[in-house]
Amino acid sequence: MKIPVVKQILTGNDQIAAENEQTFRENGVFALNLMAAPGAGKTTFILATIDHLPADVRPAVIEGDLASTIDADTISQRGVPVIQINTGGGCHLDAPMVRNSLPHFALSDIDLLFIENVGNLVCPSNFKLGTALSVVVSSTAEGHDKPYKYPGIFATADVVILTKADILEVFEFDREYFERGLKAVNQHAPLFVVSGRTGAGIDAWVAWLLDRRRGYTAAI
Amino acid sequence: MKIPVVKQILTGNDQIAAENEQTFRENGVFALNLMAAPGAGKTTFILATIDHLPADVRPAVIEGDLASTIDADTISQRGVPVIQINTGGGCHLDAPMVRNSLPHFALSDIDLLFIENVGNLVCPSNFKLGTALSVVVSSTAEGHDKPYKYPGIFATADVVILTKADILEVFEFDREYFERGLKAVNQHAPLFVVSGRTGAGIDAWVAWLLDRRRGYTAAI
Repeated sequence: MKIPVVKQILTGNDQIAAENEQTFRENGVFALNLMAAPGAGKTTFILATIDHLPADVRPAVIEGDLASTIDADTISQRGVPVIQINTGGGCHLDAPMVRNSLPHFALSDIDLLFIENVGNLVCPSNFKLGTALSVVVSSTAEGHDKPYKYPGIFATADVVILTKADILEVFEFDREYFERGLKAVNQHAPLFVVSGRTGAGIDAWVAWLLDRRRGYTAAI
Repeated sequence: MKIPVVKQILTGNDQIAAENEQTFRENGVFALNLMAAPGAGKTTFILATIDHLPADVRPAVIEGDLASTIDADTISQRGVPVIQINTGGGCHLDAPMVRNSLPHFALSDIDLLFIENVGNLVCPSNFKLGTALSVVVSSTAEGHDKPYKYPGIFATADVVILTKADILEVFEFDREYFERGLKAVNQHAPLFVVSGRTGAGIDAWVAWLLDRRRGYTAAI
């Protein structure tokens, strides 16, 4: 007897993520999905990255939070186009939320779109947004065991950023142990060790990011 | 026309949480649900609390993690009864997980049961476990804006612990701003500022905890 095989159909979220991806491509927008625990330093890292961009790369930011506009206010004060998504209790962004926010941007004026997800090391990794790059941000303050405890999100990362490197010794952070845990779940994602506060390591990360963006725009 | 009113029925999780609560009462177990972001220092805080308990108060721990037994190993090395729940990717503990773990304990030998939830400032607050006390742990390293950004979990707290107080200045942590945000969503939960590493502030917290436990056991 022949077993019927049902072709996997995109979920509602995946379908809208694919539409977002298409919209980004059409407008030459290189979009990043930044995922991290609460307080990892995502906003500080985004701002440090923006500070190190060449003048011809125009950034914008989508801020995801359960409530408040604290981070969006910080971004806005720097003159960067920003939209706040309040999930109203939801533990992650999803593709429809991102789609609904896009009409508020002039997309053709944006080269790099940072999407700061809700602070959460679990749920965000299960919902594609249509971005070109998944960035997992982890801070030295959280401890060196995070890849072992939250393997799912580290496995989905295209790149991993270790923030708050300026206070690595304060936390007796074992970088070798962290890297071993990361490698166990993800062999391809490079790791950048940075300090958003001092700017250390940001140059190397930005060089890599711009290189990835060049590959992306060349393929459009 | 009379509008039909459907009496609220307990959800599956609430029902099992009520059963857990009953089991805890019958065995004189005072159970705590510890909720925090990844890397807030829950395990270090639990161990510091255990170190400051009087000899006649017998602790035990349930560790909730997506994967690994890192925290359970740490607890076990201290000779404290511990059970690891691996959620296999789930972003929170639920009441059935706790119920299924209880047969592994000698409940009549336990006075205080610390249930360390999955590191997450969103999802755990939506699932009762049947504990007597909801404890939200937040670290100075995460920044002083957490009650504004994650109001839901802070609203459900019976008590809030601010950890890593020994490095408060490193993060330019504005305690007054944190407390104002907490008060805005929760008027009744006391705040204890502690350092699990140095032990600072643990005595005051333990005195409060034992007082709450006395009220609980007196009412059984």
